[in-house]
Amino acid sequence: MSQPIPTVGLQLRSLLKASGELELSLAKVDVPAPGPDEVVVRIEGAPINPSDLGLLLGPADISTAKVGGTAERPVLTASVPPQYLKAMTARLDDSLPVGNEGAGVVVAAGAEAQALLGQTVAILGGATYAQYRTVKAADCLRLPEGTTAAEGASCFVNPLTALGMVETMRREGHTALVHTAAASNLGQMLNKVCLADGVALVNIVRSSEQAAILREIGAAYIVDSTSPNFTEDLTAALVATGATLAFDAIGGGRLVGQILTAMEVAANRTAKSFSRYGSTVHKQAYIYGGLDTAPTTLNRGFGMSWGVGGWLLTPFLMKIGPEAAQKLRERVAAELKTTFASHYSYEVSLAEALNPEIIAAYNRRATGEKYLINPSKH
Amino acid sequence: MSQPIPTVGLQLRSLLKASGELELSLAKVDVPAPGPDEVVVRIEGAPINPSDLGLLLGPADISTAKVGGTAERPVLTASVPPQYLKAMTARLDDSLPVGNEGAGVVVAAGAEAQALLGQTVAILGGATYAQYRTVKAADCLRLPEGTTAAEGASCFVNPLTALGMVETMRREGHTALVHTAAASNLGQMLNKVCLADGVALVNIVRSSEQAAILREIGAAYIVDSTSPNFTEDLTAALVATGATLAFDAIGGGRLVGQILTAMEVAANRTAKSFSRYGSTVHKQAYIYGGLDTAPTTLNRGFGMSWGVGGWLLTPFLMKIGPEAAQKLRERVAAELKTTFASHYSYEVSLAEALNPEIIAAYNRRATGEKYLINPSKH
Repeated sequence: MSQPIPTVGLQLRSLLKASGELELSLAKVDVPAPGPDEVVVRIEGAPINPSDLGLLLGPADISTAKVGGTAERPVLTASVPPQYLKAMTARLDDSLPVGNEGAGVVVAAGAEAQALLGQTVAILGGATYAQYRTVKAADCLRLPEGTTAAEGASCFVNPLTALGMVETMRREGHTALVHTAAASNLGQMLNKVCLADGVALVNIVRSSEQAAILREIGAAYIVDSTSPNFTEDLTAALVATGATLAFDAIGGGRLVGQILTAMEVAANRTAKSFSRYGSTVHKQAYIYGGLDTAPTTLNRGFGMSWGVGGWLLTPFLMKIGPEAAQKLRERVAAELKTTFASHYSYEVSLAEALNPEIIAAYNRRATGEKYLINPSKH
Repeated sequence: MSQPIPTVGLQLRSLLKASGELELSLAKVDVPAPGPDEVVVRIEGAPINPSDLGLLLGPADISTAKVGGTAERPVLTASVPPQYLKAMTARLDDSLPVGNEGAGVVVAAGAEAQALLGQTVAILGGATYAQYRTVKAADCLRLPEGTTAAEGASCFVNPLTALGMVETMRREGHTALVHTAAASNLGQMLNKVCLADGVALVNIVRSSEQAAILREIGAAYIVDSTSPNFTEDLTAALVATGATLAFDAIGGGRLVGQILTAMEVAANRTAKSFSRYGSTVHKQAYIYGGLDTAPTTLNRGFGMSWGVGGWLLTPFLMKIGPEAAQKLRERVAAELKTTFASHYSYEVSLAEALNPEIIAAYNRRATGEKYLINPSKH
């Protein structure tokens, strides 16, 4: 082989101590030599998705962060408010690798996986905030010729989530969708998918700037929750689209209840007779994120035919089975530079990812500000 | 025929006016002559279930009630806070009959239904707060010899709801149950069903008096939500039973979220490894009542595998299909004087049911205080 197989690399670790302290560090870990059907990927891009932040930061209060260690291998500590520790019992004192997905170059390959050597691939499955990752060749998605690691770094979580929402809609008998925090990277993808598939999508945003982002990419229904006409606008959009399924990234506050109430009003507006328990149309909202960690408040002014629940990509993919999941993955690969293109505002090294100011910035989860960790950057 | 077929009778009506006023009255309505396959039932007992109160009183403020009309045919009016009117659009200015179920004596029968003449039967399907009701013979449940109308008046809603909860548990893959407001008539029935079927049931009550009621009928798991040890007691009961499904009659406040959180803690206590999005065990709560009309507040400290939704008997029966529903009904008839026995604290006439003090009493939905309307009482 032309280059030595790396045997050691840095890996970002999140450790929540029973004492109530979060510790982020860069551990020197062995890189397992690839088995016959495995490859070693030098990771060059791994996005910080909202779905990574829970594991990375836990319920720590980042304003209390202190940095020790060295410039190359900093150690960040922050305190965790005691009331949140109980729910974390299962991970206490367990040093955990982080990073759902990423992409990079195959720098070593087992006998059966030689075809991938030197190729740029995307991977899913954890521990991607690391310099190297040994994975099964079958778990790699070979990126189309001319695709960079940065372009392919986000080809699982957001694209499959957007496709999963539309697929959930079809499988549960709904015909249109509502999405909150709709101007996010994911939200923009969802708009492109819905436009391509002819699915009506009601986008709920929280500012006129966010509305403008969506208008530019062709979104037909955009409702601003900060507008005094929010309820009327939302109801009108629901009447127009017939949407009875919402995906919510915010979680906290009254928004989910407001959406269900507006769905109920929309359903009753077209109902032929009074139903004593409200409309018989089933109204569903799935909470898949927690941008607002405050409690969810439901006023229950929406009859008895409703559901609210958690929604997560991995259980969804398991539920639909490997064949259906593979179909979704193939679509992502085919449309990686169009429908599923991601844009990053900042590329940071592993050490920079542990900088308190940078953490505070990506932890804001601001629309249009997406971070990519490049573990090969120094 | 030995007695004349009644042609006119009193029927309780609930009218919600667009002006924001609720009007309850006793309308003189024609009693339709029975068709060949129909019977006329003289109703002698119709329970006031929590599920009747929504249609009967709507969101009216009963403390504003005024009574007009005559002693025999009073008319009650009360005002409705304007913010609740929007959700009521579909019923505004529509005078509606009330009463889900009841029982009485067949006083007239069509040619094909003569076998029922003189029999005591139970009926489901609305408008039972009335002196007479013409229904299909096939929709009558003939009560066993020696059963009074009062004994048979509640043989649909509560018994089928209790059976429906256990059936839902089995169909959705859970193995034990949690129930709130657990000392209610329905809650006591559910305990009897669960004891008979060997299903573990965690009863959540709000006082030591309610706990005593359940202890007396053999309930094994009783948790008092007013106790300082509520969380620990509930978690221990969930660990012991493995219950991951709750039916909640209260709706408002933090209780549903507390139950889901305790289920999550119980699931993690037995989990083998940390799952970043919380336990993968699906935790479900169905809200089937609204004893507390305040908003439902969910703190979402229970991972991502959860659902909360409305649960209603009629859609449930439609979902399981006529054969499965018939099986449940047959069990009710067979166990009407044992498992499914109901007890009433007060029997009132139609006119008394419109008395503001009596309304205030049954609208409190106090445990152990159940009202039966006897439309044949003067």
